[in-house]
Amino acid sequence: MPTSSAPGKVYLFGEHAVVYGEPAVPCAIERRVRATVERRDDGRVVLDAPALSFDGVTVEYGAGDPALSTEPALTAEPARVRRAVRYVDAALASAREVAGDETVGFDVSIDSDLPIGAGLGSSAAVTVASLDAAARACDVELDRATLADRAYQVEREAQDGQASRADTFCAATGGAVRVEGDDCRSLAAPSLPFVVASDGGAGDTGALVAGVRRLAEAYPFAADTIGAIGDLVRRGEDALAAGDVEELGRLMDVNHGLLSALGVSSRSLDELVWTARDAGALGAKLTGAGGGGCIVALDPTDATERALALAPACETTFRAELADEGLERE
Amino acid sequence: MPTSSAPGKVYLFGEHAVVYGEPAVPCAIERRVRATVERRDDGRVVLDAPALSFDGVTVEYGAGDPALSTEPALTAEPARVRRAVRYVDAALASAREVAGDETVGFDVSIDSDLPIGAGLGSSAAVTVASLDAAARACDVELDRATLADRAYQVEREAQDGQASRADTFCAATGGAVRVEGDDCRSLAAPSLPFVVASDGGAGDTGALVAGVRRLAEAYPFAADTIGAIGDLVRRGEDALAAGDVEELGRLMDVNHGLLSALGVSSRSLDELVWTARDAGALGAKLTGAGGGGCIVALDPTDATERALALAPACETTFRAELADEGLERE
Repeated sequence: MPTSSAPGKVYLFGEHAVVYGEPAVPCAIERRVRATVERRDDGRVVLDAPALSFDGVTVEYGAGDPALSTEPALTAEPARVRRAVRYVDAALASAREVAGDETVGFDVSIDSDLPIGAGLGSSAAVTVASLDAAARACDVELDRATLADRAYQVEREAQDGQASRADTFCAATGGAVRVEGDDCRSLAAPSLPFVVASDGGAGDTGALVAGVRRLAEAYPFAADTIGAIGDLVRRGEDALAAGDVEELGRLMDVNHGLLSALGVSSRSLDELVWTARDAGALGAKLTGAGGGGCIVALDPTDATERALALAPACETTFRAELADEGLERE
Repeated sequence: MPTSSAPGKVYLFGEHAVVYGEPAVPCAIERRVRATVERRDDGRVVLDAPALSFDGVTVEYGAGDPALSTEPALTAEPARVRRAVRYVDAALASAREVAGDETVGFDVSIDSDLPIGAGLGSSAAVTVASLDAAARACDVELDRATLADRAYQVEREAQDGQASRADTFCAATGGAVRVEGDDCRSLAAPSLPFVVASDGGAGDTGALVAGVRRLAEAYPFAADTIGAIGDLVRRGEDALAAGDVEELGRLMDVNHGLLSALGVSSRSLDELVWTARDAGALGAKLTGAGGGGCIVALDPTDATERALALAPACETTFRAELADEGLERE
């Protein structure tokens, strides 16, 4: 049974500004979603995904079933489970296409040490891992560029036409990535001692992106703030190339402030950021859409993780090095 | 016995950026320092200032006494008391000069409902009130422009050559003030429902200003952030002229984020700002140098003050309308 895994990601710099054509630098983190897939000849899909909820979730449906909207056990699950199943379903459809077999079924098992639905790129990791494992179950080996491109199309379908090429590129390729518009490329990077903490929530990405747009349209200085983030990212690329981790931390602190000015931080994210800084982190910022969710800090010691674990606003925290590899096959 | 009072102030917009030639808008708040002064013919000064510390402070010294550095009771007082006495001493010297009587002594009593040394312009209010009351005790009535100018010179002397004309102009003149470089002028403004909260601390202004300078010199995008604050202030002037208090609140929120990007906020200031926003304030930001001290919010209701009073980071909170009058004489 082929197993494929793909890493989650944090934004070292540049979220939100990337929407306006500025560059951003997502980085794959060594926390992975693993998909194990086997062919079924009865055309049905059995998805067993303990990672998607605390109680575990098992979903079974066939090609003709309107299962994803009506299956009782599934609609009772949290929204993040239903969302994750959409990605798996679309990834399996893509695998059937590359296999040239529109009727093949799958046994799919998904496991994860990456928090799901927390703004850490779990949907891209689920998509890349499921698509690759399902293709392999059909004896098709996709190269990374094709995998990243197909996974992007899957995300677009599962997200009603909206997706970022950066997420699936990062999950497929790993490492530090520079994204600017549709152009994604890998950056050389030193070892990055990330510490991630989640407040247990998740911002409404669409509403947050719309809020930034309203600000940028109302106020030229808000548009300038987006431009300042772009300049910061370019400086950050220099620091990455130079392997200057302390400089990366300083830039993360400023990036967080600029995101705060754009209205996308939150009380709990600020509390987590200050906890990390007070513990001696080299820098800390929210990662992703904001409004709730996760922060990322840089700290080669254990001090930041220990302090975050005790912070009232912190639901979960973990260390994760930069994931040099994206997709891995077992 | 003449009594003169002068208001404290908050920065509605623009602190720190004003150092780089951008405009800023300090606003006088209806919290006052009151100085009552009477001539003494023995050339001595007796300063009775319960407002300057919790236990009250009484200082007595003569023209030739090296009292301010060596008087045992005084050196035991907190630094903010010793600083406040320097302003009073320099203000009395200025009053002797305008009175043309270099040997006159004074009984001075200082009372305040403005927190002292909390970054709310207490030194300028102490200076303006003491200088005006002492001049009146010598039968000299200063016009406001002269008073503001002399009080500025007093602050410069008490602060080893560094002072802002805005502080004493605001204390002498009241209302909303536009400062740009050495140019200070009054702005028309609607009624502004300020709520102030202090974390009980005070940042190191010199260190904070130096930190912003290091950032601005190292990073062009930090210099751009300073420029963005200037553009925000100009937009704020329009909102003041239009009497649009909700817009002022929105701009305060963005101003706070831009100050955070410049590294001058703190954990407790961010907590107070979020407490105000969560309570329904129209906007909230740190006021003054930052690093600790006070925030200012806008809320026509009591909700923000009530919420701040319960916040762990809050030492004291109070409502204060815009003070239309600066100096007042009783």
